[in-house]
Amino acid sequence: MPPNHGRIPGEGDLLRRIERAAGSRSRSRRDSGIRLGIGDDAALWKPRAGFETLLTTDWFLEGTHFLRKLHPPDSVGWKCLARAASDVAAMGGEPRCFLLSLALPENATGTWLDEFLRGLARAARRLRCQLAGGDTTKKDTIAINVTVVGEARSGRVVRRSGARDGDYIYVSGTLGEAACGFELLKRSKPRNAKRNLALRRHLYPEPRLALGKWLAEKCIATAMIDISDGLSTDMLRLCEASRLGALLDAADFPCHKGPHGRRRSPASSTLLKMALNGGDDYELLFTAPRNALLPREFRGLRISPIGIMTSGPNVVISEPNAPLSKYYVLTPGGWDPFRK
Amino acid sequence: MPPNHGRIPGEGDLLRRIERAAGSRSRSRRDSGIRLGIGDDAALWKPRAGFETLLTTDWFLEGTHFLRKLHPPDSVGWKCLARAASDVAAMGGEPRCFLLSLALPENATGTWLDEFLRGLARAARRLRCQLAGGDTTKKDTIAINVTVVGEARSGRVVRRSGARDGDYIYVSGTLGEAACGFELLKRSKPRNAKRNLALRRHLYPEPRLALGKWLAEKCIATAMIDISDGLSTDMLRLCEASRLGALLDAADFPCHKGPHGRRRSPASSTLLKMALNGGDDYELLFTAPRNALLPREFRGLRISPIGIMTSGPNVVISEPNAPLSKYYVLTPGGWDPFRK
Repeated sequence: MPPNHGRIPGEGDLLRRIERAAGSRSRSRRDSGIRLGIGDDAALWKPRAGFETLLTTDWFLEGTHFLRKLHPPDSVGWKCLARAASDVAAMGGEPRCFLLSLALPENATGTWLDEFLRGLARAARRLRCQLAGGDTTKKDTIAINVTVVGEARSGRVVRRSGARDGDYIYVSGTLGEAACGFELLKRSKPRNAKRNLALRRHLYPEPRLALGKWLAEKCIATAMIDISDGLSTDMLRLCEASRLGALLDAADFPCHKGPHGRRRSPASSTLLKMALNGGDDYELLFTAPRNALLPREFRGLRISPIGIMTSGPNVVISEPNAPLSKYYVLTPGGWDPFRK
Repeated sequence: MPPNHGRIPGEGDLLRRIERAAGSRSRSRRDSGIRLGIGDDAALWKPRAGFETLLTTDWFLEGTHFLRKLHPPDSVGWKCLARAASDVAAMGGEPRCFLLSLALPENATGTWLDEFLRGLARAARRLRCQLAGGDTTKKDTIAINVTVVGEARSGRVVRRSGARDGDYIYVSGTLGEAACGFELLKRSKPRNAKRNLALRRHLYPEPRLALGKWLAEKCIATAMIDISDGLSTDMLRLCEASRLGALLDAADFPCHKGPHGRRRSPASSTLLKMALNGGDDYELLFTAPRNALLPREFRGLRISPIGIMTSGPNVVISEPNAPLSKYYVLTPGGWDPFRK
């Protein structure tokens, strides 16, 4: 009979609750390559032969990335994993396992934590990304850090830097929807999130893993990035990495219809600004050769050509209804915590 | 000629400074298996054939783990990496690369960050663990999270759970030294840290990587853990994982001599308490079969036998000079952020 140890209270209890909720069944754990999960000094993970490892880490901080009064805890749990997994999608890989670092105030270790873990476990199942380990500690505000470990077939990873002059630029889904959802959330209760698409996109974003993997394995995309900080900021990042410019046609942007569901001319509305700077969309922005045959939809997800890579120094937007000039140079207007 | 992009201010600048300071030369990066570092959606890392991957993550928070007024920034940089690497040592692996998540107030992005990065870069070189990527954001207090990716030969990892009844228990180095260093720091200026061993142990701990790897590769250790939270807490964790008890002899503890350098009887002093509960020592606590021939020193590092694993339910300490009874049952007294 195993000895009955005096229980170690405190952090150990918390770890057990986290493992029960998000650790999932041992079969899924083995499928994820996890040989040893929570409960030792480090997790043990077996990489697959012929694959390279993708590593990405993301902050999700109360006050900076979410508001405790506004965002339901299960959305915080879902989103902290989904947005880190979106970085793996943007490389064309698949997530395998993740580490969860959680700093909590005492008053968030009860119901808040339970609901958070429910959302996290749901995302872990959906994204096939299993909890492998983490760290917990106490803090006056909630701080979350998620590290996702992914894999991609050797040599098939899509970087930001591979775009070529003349490549077409594409974006998946619609833009500005999550930003619109956030506006709605601030004005209403989140309980109707399941019915409202924009709210759902803000609270429970879906990283475009299947599309990213397809674009990478079929060698279609030459460069790729996920739009987490807004099209304007992330387009400039892709251009900077590829040392190229771009010409974008605002009329082609797959803008969200807005809170009232009416599709207005994007150029004449604030919807274009939301598409450019809203962020939080977790769509994929990628480039492909002009002769690549891209479908208009991939498994129900719209794929829109929005411009072309150029050798010029800037990202130029063509916007027919702009008040002053049809063409203007794009400046980063998306999310940047350190911009003054 | 590459186009001259309008620079993206803010977070991009910060990332470039971090990469310059801690990204190190491309050769060390390649040696670490990093195929793609900072500057894309995720880092790309190539695991070695015949090795398994170790994953560990650690918080290092202002107010919880360090004090901005007390701890020099380069110590914060060194220690946040060293303590995460210590978890890899405790599994018998070697660190390969790391992800740095940094949340900073505006007033820490100047000199504080420069000195922090100097300490971090020094630790990265010393531990042969290269920066692969990370995430930065703004926050009112400094929050750091470090994920270390390590490797161990397949099948050679040492877990907490492998101890057997009758195995001897060993500990490396001295105990309570870092806790003593912290006491000194609170009373004095840290500028004499280079000369004072205890202060150095608190500010710039050295994870026992060479010893851990040797114990694993020679198949000597049956179970292992690093003493980051204090011997009392970590001994109980090892026993709980191995479903065994232990008998420890306090007279054998390699206690620190104390701030005045005089070695007093540990049982009659607070030094025993510091050894048991002080924490922050980052020494290795491990078990080995009775017939294993352990040297008394490994590369200048003392190895002390301190007890024996038992089938009993408790960890019992024998302490000849204790006021009430020679034997008492150990309770966890080390660091636990959630203990009330």
